[in-house]
Amino acid sequence: MQDWLSRSLKVQQDQLWLLDQQALPQQQRWLRVQTVEQLLQYIQALQVRGAPLIGLSACVLVALLAQRGLAAQQLSSIIQRLRQSRPTAVNLSNNLACMEQALQQHNRVEMLVKTAEQLLAQDKQACQQIALAGASLITANSRLLTHCNTGGLATVGIGTALGVIMHGFHQGRVQQVWVDETRPLLQGARLTSWELAEQGIPYQLICDAMAGSLMAQGKVDAVWLGADRIASNGDVANKVGSYSLAVLAHYHRIPCYVAAPRTTLDLACANGQAIPIEQRSRQEVLGAQGAFGCVQWAPAQAAVYNPAFDIIPAELISGWVFETGVVTANTLATAGFASG
Amino acid sequence: MQDWLSRSLKVQQDQLWLLDQQALPQQQRWLRVQTVEQLLQYIQALQVRGAPLIGLSACVLVALLAQRGLAAQQLSSIIQRLRQSRPTAVNLSNNLACMEQALQQHNRVEMLVKTAEQLLAQDKQACQQIALAGASLITANSRLLTHCNTGGLATVGIGTALGVIMHGFHQGRVQQVWVDETRPLLQGARLTSWELAEQGIPYQLICDAMAGSLMAQGKVDAVWLGADRIASNGDVANKVGSYSLAVLAHYHRIPCYVAAPRTTLDLACANGQAIPIEQRSRQEVLGAQGAFGCVQWAPAQAAVYNPAFDIIPAELISGWVFETGVVTANTLATAGFASG
Repeated sequence: MQDWLSRSLKVQQDQLWLLDQQALPQQQRWLRVQTVEQLLQYIQALQVRGAPLIGLSACVLVALLAQRGLAAQQLSSIIQRLRQSRPTAVNLSNNLACMEQALQQHNRVEMLVKTAEQLLAQDKQACQQIALAGASLITANSRLLTHCNTGGLATVGIGTALGVIMHGFHQGRVQQVWVDETRPLLQGARLTSWELAEQGIPYQLICDAMAGSLMAQGKVDAVWLGADRIASNGDVANKVGSYSLAVLAHYHRIPCYVAAPRTTLDLACANGQAIPIEQRSRQEVLGAQGAFGCVQWAPAQAAVYNPAFDIIPAELISGWVFETGVVTANTLATAGFASG
Repeated sequence: MQDWLSRSLKVQQDQLWLLDQQALPQQQRWLRVQTVEQLLQYIQALQVRGAPLIGLSACVLVALLAQRGLAAQQLSSIIQRLRQSRPTAVNLSNNLACMEQALQQHNRVEMLVKTAEQLLAQDKQACQQIALAGASLITANSRLLTHCNTGGLATVGIGTALGVIMHGFHQGRVQQVWVDETRPLLQGARLTSWELAEQGIPYQLICDAMAGSLMAQGKVDAVWLGADRIASNGDVANKVGSYSLAVLAHYHRIPCYVAAPRTTLDLACANGQAIPIEQRSRQEVLGAQGAFGCVQWAPAQAAVYNPAFDIIPAELISGWVFETGVVTANTLATAGFASG
């Protein structure tokens, strides 16, 4: 397979490496992935995360395992196992469907490798096109609020929502970014802060519960979110907390945009109700852990509710930004997501 | 001065002791307070917190210092210093105004001690009356959401909003409590969880950003909040995140109640815009610290916005519960906060 180098995924001499996103920003540590068990473990622990990145990591591993001579049946079973690793994001499933098709070809090794390479290249290009399309929605001197991490760490390109923000900044229209810390796993505090600092983009980190009062003070011009799955009616599953932000933005008449590659679309899914929401370990909410240390502040026996995602209904979304362009409520009503 | 024993404040043999609320729930450690410098430091560090408790701690210390023979001028200057220790909560200022009056009397030591004793007794009784009045608003099988800590730790009685919830539970109408963890200082995760567990009241701890999606799923029947200051038009300053909850509750047509003693009222304050909002250290948002340990997950140089409070406009509040009874938007419009 061709070498590939991006912020969070690299392929070198037919080896897959993933940047450990639980170790950031304290440590930049690359994980070598040689088995499906390793990848599943890294995905579960959110050491590899971000809907597009998870999907692409899985495809690259399948291609490399095919090169190493695994039988078609083994590869098929590996694809099934990977598909089930996280239930909410659909990119993984959509990407692996492409790999399954390649697996059916007589020259399957060649086709699997080619498909994985194409998917990587497509994601990178999609990020560029999303950034271009989305940045056109950013008005002068914007103060933009974002949640979780949707940058170069979540994709193999420049990112989705954060890619839009970065592009808008380099075009001179972003004054500053408000970064939600994004409890419980702190992707905003750890990852988005780190990416913005690297690009020299002014930002301020806030606790998630502060977003509303910022909006009330007129300090937020738009909310930019990524997506883990988009249903055919436009409902969006994204990192828990996204729904609250969308309601708050609606109440304050602030636009709320969702940016994602089309691999995030699940046209077979009628609406948000049909999207499974992953429930995660109570340990995540009892405290915090990462390369920064491990602490538990809540009583050990505390009962916890920990959904990893929530659903934004389509009516709270001002626009869906894909690599094919911007879809608004109007175009969605007439043409669906069929075209950009 | 008479001995006093409550959850978070005790007076024994003319010594003031405060339960260290930064050490909870890992450690139950009492701090002996002998000087104004100590108390100021404990207040700044939120080792003593909760609008009513801060006010009462200050009064008890002033009374004890008077007993120890401090001159009137020294006491007056101590009262001024204490008043400025935290700008948002008004109970401190209201309580100390009573102490200042006592200081003017010819038998000032006796009057200061008597006033402090009365304020303690009044707060305890007010909590009981708030709980009775508030619990009448709780419907059968309620699932109630609360933010920060408003229980026996925040007052010298059973609490304000959490006192209402506990009373409603013991009357058999509370099914469970949703506890916001309340970043950055985690009063919900550490203190409210601990108080509810002690009372055997079923609760689930959530991250602050999860409240909205719980409401969307119909899992929240009412929101109960405390207050740090209530303006004459009914606007409320409370722990940051309260405003978002009030907007979310409004959007989902869920009642949002505020419970507080009348010492929280600032009738000289026209509206929420006039309430000063304390900005706190960036260190609090970069990570977390307490008896559980000290971690920093964000990049060290990250810029941070850290307001400790936000303002809930009166129109988002379904009822204000005082020791004198429940005030609604209607009664507020006709009689103001003059009567209960």
